[in-house]
Amino acid sequence: MQIALEDARDFARGAAFLGTGGGGDPYIGRLLLEQALRRSGPAQVIAADSLEDDALVIPIAGMGAPTVIVEKILGFAEGELALRTIEQRLGRKASAIMSAEIGGLNALYPVAIAAHLGLPVVDADGMGRAFPELQMVSFNIYGQRAAPAVMTDEHGDAVLIESLDNHRVEKLARPVVVPMGGLCMMALYPMSGAAVRECAVHTTLSLALGVGRALAAARDDQRDPFEALFEFLRGTKHYRHCKLLFDGKIVDLRRETRDGWASGQAIIEDPTGAERLIIDLRNEYLRARRASGGQQYTVAIAPDLIAILDRETAEPITTENLKYGQRVKVVGVSAPSIMRSARALEVWGPRAFGFDEPFQCLEAVSG
Amino acid sequence: MQIALEDARDFARGAAFLGTGGGGDPYIGRLLLEQALRRSGPAQVIAADSLEDDALVIPIAGMGAPTVIVEKILGFAEGELALRTIEQRLGRKASAIMSAEIGGLNALYPVAIAAHLGLPVVDADGMGRAFPELQMVSFNIYGQRAAPAVMTDEHGDAVLIESLDNHRVEKLARPVVVPMGGLCMMALYPMSGAAVRECAVHTTLSLALGVGRALAAARDDQRDPFEALFEFLRGTKHYRHCKLLFDGKIVDLRRETRDGWASGQAIIEDPTGAERLIIDLRNEYLRARRASGGQQYTVAIAPDLIAILDRETAEPITTENLKYGQRVKVVGVSAPSIMRSARALEVWGPRAFGFDEPFQCLEAVSG
Repeated sequence: MQIALEDARDFARGAAFLGTGGGGDPYIGRLLLEQALRRSGPAQVIAADSLEDDALVIPIAGMGAPTVIVEKILGFAEGELALRTIEQRLGRKASAIMSAEIGGLNALYPVAIAAHLGLPVVDADGMGRAFPELQMVSFNIYGQRAAPAVMTDEHGDAVLIESLDNHRVEKLARPVVVPMGGLCMMALYPMSGAAVRECAVHTTLSLALGVGRALAAARDDQRDPFEALFEFLRGTKHYRHCKLLFDGKIVDLRRETRDGWASGQAIIEDPTGAERLIIDLRNEYLRARRASGGQQYTVAIAPDLIAILDRETAEPITTENLKYGQRVKVVGVSAPSIMRSARALEVWGPRAFGFDEPFQCLEAVSG
Repeated sequence: MQIALEDARDFARGAAFLGTGGGGDPYIGRLLLEQALRRSGPAQVIAADSLEDDALVIPIAGMGAPTVIVEKILGFAEGELALRTIEQRLGRKASAIMSAEIGGLNALYPVAIAAHLGLPVVDADGMGRAFPELQMVSFNIYGQRAAPAVMTDEHGDAVLIESLDNHRVEKLARPVVVPMGGLCMMALYPMSGAAVRECAVHTTLSLALGVGRALAAARDDQRDPFEALFEFLRGTKHYRHCKLLFDGKIVDLRRETRDGWASGQAIIEDPTGAERLIIDLRNEYLRARRASGGQQYTVAIAPDLIAILDRETAEPITTENLKYGQRVKVVGVSAPSIMRSARALEVWGPRAFGFDEPFQCLEAVSG
């Protein structure tokens, strides 16, 4: 499979949807991806199952506050420096690149850098969506080490972190994001082909491209894009439970960029003013609660996906692009079962985000 | 020259004096040093002039808030890991270890680790005193690169920083101090023997030992220790201007550990209550202002040395050991001329610490 120049727009839109508000502005990511594909030709996407056991796969991801991405454009140099630094540390060359999260810029950048460097990119990632912390990846849950991990910035500076403890890697890396300008590029969780097969969420690049194509086709055919989206998702193996959670207007919006994250809350009100949906966000949309008749109850919560989309075009809206008064629809999608295991929920379930409530499957919640 | 077990106490006291309040609690450093010397025999101290041109010298220093040192004891493992990580990065073994600052723990630890590892330690450092920031070393002023620089902690974690810009190394390293528990060990400014000869402040280990011995001899002979201290300093080549700045009691003390530094102010009042000395500190004592008859004027300022000592025993008191009501004498010592050059003052002159006043030589200030 390839991702070619003409796929960039669909892939970016699908990645923005799976990013559930995070992973960075898809427009910037698309520009980067298009630049790479125009210059170097299509990116070669390979199935995880086709990797040699001892292949060296290097996940690449941006770390920081997505709000910064619109101000500070990352180039290819940061990703290449991260890759080269980790190759030098390991004493061998990478066989392939992988995305750590299939959301927004973090889905697009690895594909761009793979095309740029002439390396294949694996059709898989470590989240099946986007999450705000380094240890919130399936690679961690299934026993891979985050370190050696490298952070790079536009100054040509590199910070290499060595630790046996993945939570320590997150703790050591996070504060470095600030002097790196709020956003940096990372190479981390270097792993074997065998480990990728076992620990990654498979076929998510194909999934992003499929979501984007479904939305584009609906527009071309003047069909309801939400209908097309749901139809596509229901045809997938792992993301088939999906529903419209809310339809309304953003009436309250609080975001702040703090400690390297974009945190806050968005409140959406229905046209009658009788009901509201409260979205808690930290880089990503993490919880949706419906407020109605003086009562509040959760209708979707991480790791299930919550997406906010333009109510007419179904264009996914990232946290940094939310605006007061926007008319939106909010969509919930079930995460794959591998992401809902007890082991996984310990790492990226509600309590990992400070929500004092258990995980409830989206498809089990009424309303 | 050697530093043997019986020298540890004098060396630690001299290093605490040169630390001008910073560089960490000398008691903890002395325990570490004594442990190493007891186990491994004397540390071999070699003159900078005896180094081969292409020798690889690795400065070792703790980074963080000295207030933390009394709570969290650093062991040999952190220094050894820092050294090994930088050796691995450079692909060669260190010929010798050096102190980056000849103050408190940062004077003692490199000697301890040198004895522990059976490596010589160079009779020189990069400050001729103690300073609170990584780029405030003669190595930086005279053109050496701080990176590759390594930070290590008691978890066995290591962070390797690569940058061509020494200020960036400080900016990237400082926030990592926090997740490393407020204090970490570093190996940085790896340099050749030729570079050490040109860029280091020479013979400062001998100086620290000399100060400590002078104070010890005075106690043994029941002489005034301040007289003995001044006599010794006046006999040195570079630290010969020295004077008593104040004699009084600590009446006000503000310290906070913030952003990895211990910052604050100490106010000392003379017995008549008519005069006060205001000491500004950030890890080190950086400025002494005399307040008298409604007027304030600076009597000593960095890079000149300001030391606060017990008024009876002349025991140097570090910032974290200051106490309300302590009876102290404050001593000023001129920094070597190499530390007062225009180039040097840009890096560690008054304005580098946010003081809006020019540097004045201690010996030129009346009072």
